[in-house]
Amino acid sequence: MVDILHRIAAKGVEVGETYDALTTLEGLSRWWTENTTGTTDVGGRIAFKFENGDFEMEVAELEPGARVLWEVVGGSAPEWIGTKIHWDLRQEDDYTVVLFKHEGWAEPVEFMHHCSTKWGSFLVSLKQLLETGTGAPWPHDPHIDNWG
Amino acid sequence: MVDILHRIAAKGVEVGETYDALTTLEGLSRWWTENTTGTTDVGGRIAFKFENGDFEMEVAELEPGARVLWEVVGGSAPEWIGTKIHWDLRQEDDYTVVLFKHEGWAEPVEFMHHCSTKWGSFLVSLKQLLETGTGAPWPHDPHIDNWG
Repeated sequence: MVDILHRIAAKGVEVGETYDALTTLEGLSRWWTENTTGTTDVGGRIAFKFENGDFEMEVAELEPGARVLWEVVGGSAPEWIGTKIHWDLRQEDDYTVVLFKHEGWAEPVEFMHHCSTKWGSFLVSLKQLLETGTGAPWPHDPHIDNWG
Repeated sequence: MVDILHRIAAKGVEVGETYDALTTLEGLSRWWTENTTGTTDVGGRIAFKFENGDFEMEVAELEPGARVLWEVVGGSAPEWIGTKIHWDLRQEDDYTVVLFKHEGWAEPVEFMHHCSTKWGSFLVSLKQLLETGTGAPWPHDPHIDNWG
C-alpha cells in the first residue's frame, strides 16, 4: 500500500475556518469542485463531480478544529475505492497547518502520480481560498497534465 | 521506505526541450533554483541552494530524451541523503509527459509532506517554463506553508 502526502499552511487563518472549508458543502465547493453535493455529518456521503469523473466519500470521523477522515466508497476511479483521506489540522503561530494523507493505494500506478500533483494543486487552492477568499475549484482548476 | 510521486505534462513541448531543462545548469536554474551550480554530466555533482538549505545531487544516469536519475549525496537535509530522484520522460501526442519519483524516504515525516507539495509546485514551475518560457524558481517560488 502506498500513500500520497502533502502539507500546506494558511497564514492569518484560524483552524476553525479551515475545518469549515473541509466539512461544509459551501466550503468544499469553493476549493475542490463546484459540483459538491451530499451530507457532511459523520456517516454521511459526499459526492464530488468533475469533468470526466466523480468520487463518493463517506465521512468516517470528524473532530472539530482538528481532524477529518473520509473513506472513498464510490465513484468512477476504481483505484480510489477503499482508500482513505486524512486531514489533520493544527494552529501554529499565525498559521493553520494542514497535513494531508490519501492512504491505501494498492499500487503506485501512473494515475497515482497524477492524483498526487493534482491534490497538491487543489490544496494550494484551499490555501488561497482561506487566505484571500477565492480558491480555484473545478472547473476553474489549472491543468497540470494531459489528464486534467 | 516511502516515495513522493508526481506527474505533469507540458503541451506543445518536445521531450528534448524537457530533457534540457533537467540536464543543464541554465535549464535547472529557470524552474527550481536560480542558485544552481556544478557539473551535469554522469558522475558530476550539482548543488541546488535555497534561502534556508541546499541539496547536492550526483548525476547517476542520463538517457537523452528519456530518463534522468540523481542520487542525493549532500546538503542540509539529512532526510534526503541517500534518496534518489527519478525523472522519466516521454512524448504523448502534443505533450511531454514527466513522471517524477523521489524514492527512498526512511519515514513519512512531516517534512516529507512539505517536500511533496513543494515538489508539485516546482513541477508546475517546470511546466510553465516549458510552455511559456518563464518558470518560478527560488527565490520567486510561491510559498505553500510556513516552511517555504
